[in-house]
Amino acid sequence: MFATVAAVNVSSLGFFDSGVGGLTVVRAVQELMPAEDILYLGDTARLPYGSKSPETIRQFAGEDVRFLISRGVKAIVVACNTATAHALPQLQERYRIPILGVIEPGVEAVLACENAERVGIIATRGTIRSHAYQHALALRRTGLMIHGQATPLLVPLIEENWIEHPATRAVLKTYLEPLIEKGIDTLMLACTHYPLLIPVLRELLPADVRLVDSATTCAEHLKKELTRLNLLETTAREGKLEIHLTDLSEEFEALARQFLKKSPGRIHRAVLGG
Amino acid sequence: MFATVAAVNVSSLGFFDSGVGGLTVVRAVQELMPAEDILYLGDTARLPYGSKSPETIRQFAGEDVRFLISRGVKAIVVACNTATAHALPQLQERYRIPILGVIEPGVEAVLACENAERVGIIATRGTIRSHAYQHALALRRTGLMIHGQATPLLVPLIEENWIEHPATRAVLKTYLEPLIEKGIDTLMLACTHYPLLIPVLRELLPADVRLVDSATTCAEHLKKELTRLNLLETTAREGKLEIHLTDLSEEFEALARQFLKKSPGRIHRAVLGG
Repeated sequence: MFATVAAVNVSSLGFFDSGVGGLTVVRAVQELMPAEDILYLGDTARLPYGSKSPETIRQFAGEDVRFLISRGVKAIVVACNTATAHALPQLQERYRIPILGVIEPGVEAVLACENAERVGIIATRGTIRSHAYQHALALRRTGLMIHGQATPLLVPLIEENWIEHPATRAVLKTYLEPLIEKGIDTLMLACTHYPLLIPVLRELLPADVRLVDSATTCAEHLKKELTRLNLLETTAREGKLEIHLTDLSEEFEALARQFLKKSPGRIHRAVLGG
Repeated sequence: MFATVAAVNVSSLGFFDSGVGGLTVVRAVQELMPAEDILYLGDTARLPYGSKSPETIRQFAGEDVRFLISRGVKAIVVACNTATAHALPQLQERYRIPILGVIEPGVEAVLACENAERVGIIATRGTIRSHAYQHALALRRTGLMIHGQATPLLVPLIEENWIEHPATRAVLKTYLEPLIEKGIDTLMLACTHYPLLIPVLRELLPADVRLVDSATTCAEHLKKELTRLNLLETTAREGKLEIHLTDLSEEFEALARQFLKKSPGRIHRAVLGG
């Protein structure tokens, strides 16, 4: 009997986000494809992206991608809805490496339910304003009623871990009221932070509203793409996670633990080349 | 009779902040010294500063100061408590131009009341963690009871203009409760955004708690310093305000109007040299 030898020269999957949010996607990927090594870049020095202009987000996303490519990743996931909305087409055009976003998988998951007729979307102001979800949904299914709602206070509340605080409920009630009034049957959680709100959302929404989130749908889409491109790691090894941040704040480790549901391990300081 | 001719070659006062907050200081300066030209830099591409590490804030503040110096300002105001706390001593050491922060004036104003015994400080996590106010107060008056409270959700709520929303009251109640329990007689609003909360704070705090804010105290201190350095603009001209931002978002103009209580005029895109 010999011990299983871990494959060598396995190339990592690269992920980037403005901060911790993308770790919900990482967690979903680790559950679905545990053998994959993951290199995660959080641009914490310049977070958040969700409130900034398309031009600035495209500049930052380009720098993030170049950092990951310089580390030799085999594919890149834009684990941030705002960056996907504003920068993905340009990134895919510019770089040869496979680059996936979180919007297409979410749109596919919404449309997987044939009965979906009234879809609410909650997201940062940047994502809502881009109309990326609204366009993608409307193009694929005619007659859908689509209601986008910018929910800019949710990320700060989640990052404070105030999910159970009365203020979060007060904020959510204001944000959800117009969607409930419009009788939505599906709510797209179009920000990678929002899966942490699912228990509270279930309480505040009518029971028959279906929740679709960016994290799990993106992981499933990624697995299909890696299989198609013959890039999936199929050995029985346990993949490693390496986290690089542009700013090392004292809060990140606790936040990362909350998003990953386990210790994030050692965290490195990233310097982006511009 | 001749029309008054505006002075030429008048040099501006330079202000910088991560975003809109510093405009409360600008407004106070405009009221006190209406003849001064003001050049304001908001580093909106990288805001907020309040949650980031001292090292990152010092790097950003250095770039902000170099931008203002390259524009020929006669003095610089660090119109941000977190940047003052982490970067002011280093900036003053490095550059010859007069550079003032918002902390010293606030501390002086707190101590101007001889009866102050129990002082609460509300600020970003970065400012509280720096202990800049706590140290400055404790050094000047022995026996003071000082209670610092990080209040990281206030800036996002103010920037949404949700000042009257029940969520803001719920957040403030949680933040103020430990300060009220400790029987504070003075509350230092140690973030340039917070003057907008004064009406709500007056409602939620016992009537005898004195509020001290960074904006008006800084303007008064600046006037004294400019007089001492013989840099005060003493003509009857009306000063101009020029705003430069590193990211031009659609929200900024409305927010700026709220902070300045008037139109911000034309806004320029700033590119920092690093």
